[in-house]
Amino acid sequence: MGEGEFEKIARLAARFRSVGAAGVLRGIGDDAAVLDGSVGGKLVWTIDEQVEGTHFRRDLVGWADVGFRSFMAAASDVAAMGARPWCALSALALPSDLEDDALDALADGQRLAADRIGAVLVGGNLARAQAVSIATTLLGTCDRPVAREGGVAGDRVWIAGEVGLAGAGLMALVRGAKDRRLRPAVAAWQRPVARTEAGLAMGKVAHAGIDVSDGLAQDAGHLARASGVCVVIDEERLLAHGGAALAGAAAALGVGPAELALHGGEDYALVALSAEAIPGFVEIGEVREGEGVVLRGRAGETALEGGGFDHFGRVPPGRPGSL
Amino acid sequence: MGEGEFEKIARLAARFRSVGAAGVLRGIGDDAAVLDGSVGGKLVWTIDEQVEGTHFRRDLVGWADVGFRSFMAAASDVAAMGARPWCALSALALPSDLEDDALDALADGQRLAADRIGAVLVGGNLARAQAVSIATTLLGTCDRPVAREGGVAGDRVWIAGEVGLAGAGLMALVRGAKDRRLRPAVAAWQRPVARTEAGLAMGKVAHAGIDVSDGLAQDAGHLARASGVCVVIDEERLLAHGGAALAGAAAALGVGPAELALHGGEDYALVALSAEAIPGFVEIGEVREGEGVVLRGRAGETALEGGGFDHFGRVPPGRPGSL
Repeated sequence: MGEGEFEKIARLAARFRSVGAAGVLRGIGDDAAVLDGSVGGKLVWTIDEQVEGTHFRRDLVGWADVGFRSFMAAASDVAAMGARPWCALSALALPSDLEDDALDALADGQRLAADRIGAVLVGGNLARAQAVSIATTLLGTCDRPVAREGGVAGDRVWIAGEVGLAGAGLMALVRGAKDRRLRPAVAAWQRPVARTEAGLAMGKVAHAGIDVSDGLAQDAGHLARASGVCVVIDEERLLAHGGAALAGAAAALGVGPAELALHGGEDYALVALSAEAIPGFVEIGEVREGEGVVLRGRAGETALEGGGFDHFGRVPPGRPGSL
Repeated sequence: MGEGEFEKIARLAARFRSVGAAGVLRGIGDDAAVLDGSVGGKLVWTIDEQVEGTHFRRDLVGWADVGFRSFMAAASDVAAMGARPWCALSALALPSDLEDDALDALADGQRLAADRIGAVLVGGNLARAQAVSIATTLLGTCDRPVAREGGVAGDRVWIAGEVGLAGAGLMALVRGAKDRRLRPAVAAWQRPVARTEAGLAMGKVAHAGIDVSDGLAQDAGHLARASGVCVVIDEERLLAHGGAALAGAAAALGVGPAELALHGGEDYALVALSAEAIPGFVEIGEVREGEGVVLRGRAGETALEGGGFDHFGRVPPGRPGSL
């Protein structure tokens, strides 16, 4: 049995001192945080939640990783809008028997992630629950948000960051696979990093953009649907982008690298539709009139039927496994 | 088994059309919501979470009430800062076997609460979980936020809204008590209303303020601690404020009305420390040098040792019961 609520809050507050951070007038410790309302431009605002048993299992991941990953999942949504992360709140639901060391590690992971992307945690909530869950809400700022709609025929498809590696890492953890070739994959799953800098670059020129949380095929499908276009992914370019790390992980797991790259989630790569090249992005395809997502390989074109992760529906055979 | 994730999101999006709301540039349907960043003044930002089994039980409350209550709990934090609610995000964690009708009712309750206080829901997140939880984050705007600190000796203690009634309502529901005198109490627990207008009035003059979520004694203790003062509550004034509804509920439950008023939570009354009267508020005590919270009754003064709800610690004997 850990400490009481107020002792826990005091411990967390000590980890998240936000006094002096830009635009933060009041952090943890009152009914709400207070921010400077004259930031100008546009505010980008998201919430994401990770739940024990759905997004992670205690036996497969450390608490610091849980904190880090959950924060980055939210931060990735801000990056996907081409915005700069500003500040965050976190609602933690915790079983009463969770050790204080676990809470400390979780909070350290959140703090590390926040520091990594230049955001500050300014408040939150604690509640008791049967299983751990972490809801993270983030505010970001930008002049020109990048939506899922806006892509046009003639654009190219661009990507920043790995795809498929985190999915391979999760599969390796679930299987208990120890192959040396899986280490980069496991690291990618445990400590994914939101592509903040790439997102800002994307914000300058891209017509549309999204982050890959549920699998490239599915998330590219969101872009295609919102923009009213067909997104064509070039298999050869995609695998070249995946490189040796993806190929090695796929070989160690006995699955196809394209399968991993198309259906593995939680890498938080960014995918943009843009007529111009974007610093930090690699070209992996093109946009044409039509609909859906098409994989163009040596043997021709294959329509991809979504096939990422759906929290309430089918988990497609290609997905590297959900917890 | 309900629909898939995207069908659920579409259903929710249809309930929460925020296009055209002031300062809302993009609502549900992208990686993040987009807001006008030139609101000026100050932003007040909070997150609150309600968890099945901790904050509510399916057999005691309808899903519309769950949605309504969870939204108001977050809205109350914004009111407690003297701010005007602006917009909200909601992260829902849902068991896969939750019926779509239940989700619809929950969302209707959220929508009703948002409309009631003039806020709009602009986005959210869906995740699978073993138990239902609802994390609600709200942004509000104000010129002069009211913190917990700032009260000084010589201020009076002011209250807006019921105290103890919701706690009595919860006790009635847990016991299955059907007494007619408990109806206002049950309604107060099922449909608490954040004191938005009172909060705005408080924002003009109060030195310090808080909302009563965990019990008056405990929340007044936060004011006393943050302001470095002693908060004196006059029992007679408090009970007069509670009126016939509180007295009737207390009699029906066989508990003291002062016990309910001091330790019952979730009414979301506002308590302010202010030298001036505040429209919509009733005076219930005074602020003097010292520390802690003191109840002044006919037999003299009694120091109150907190005694509200602590999610991870003791639940004091006076509390009307936690789920």
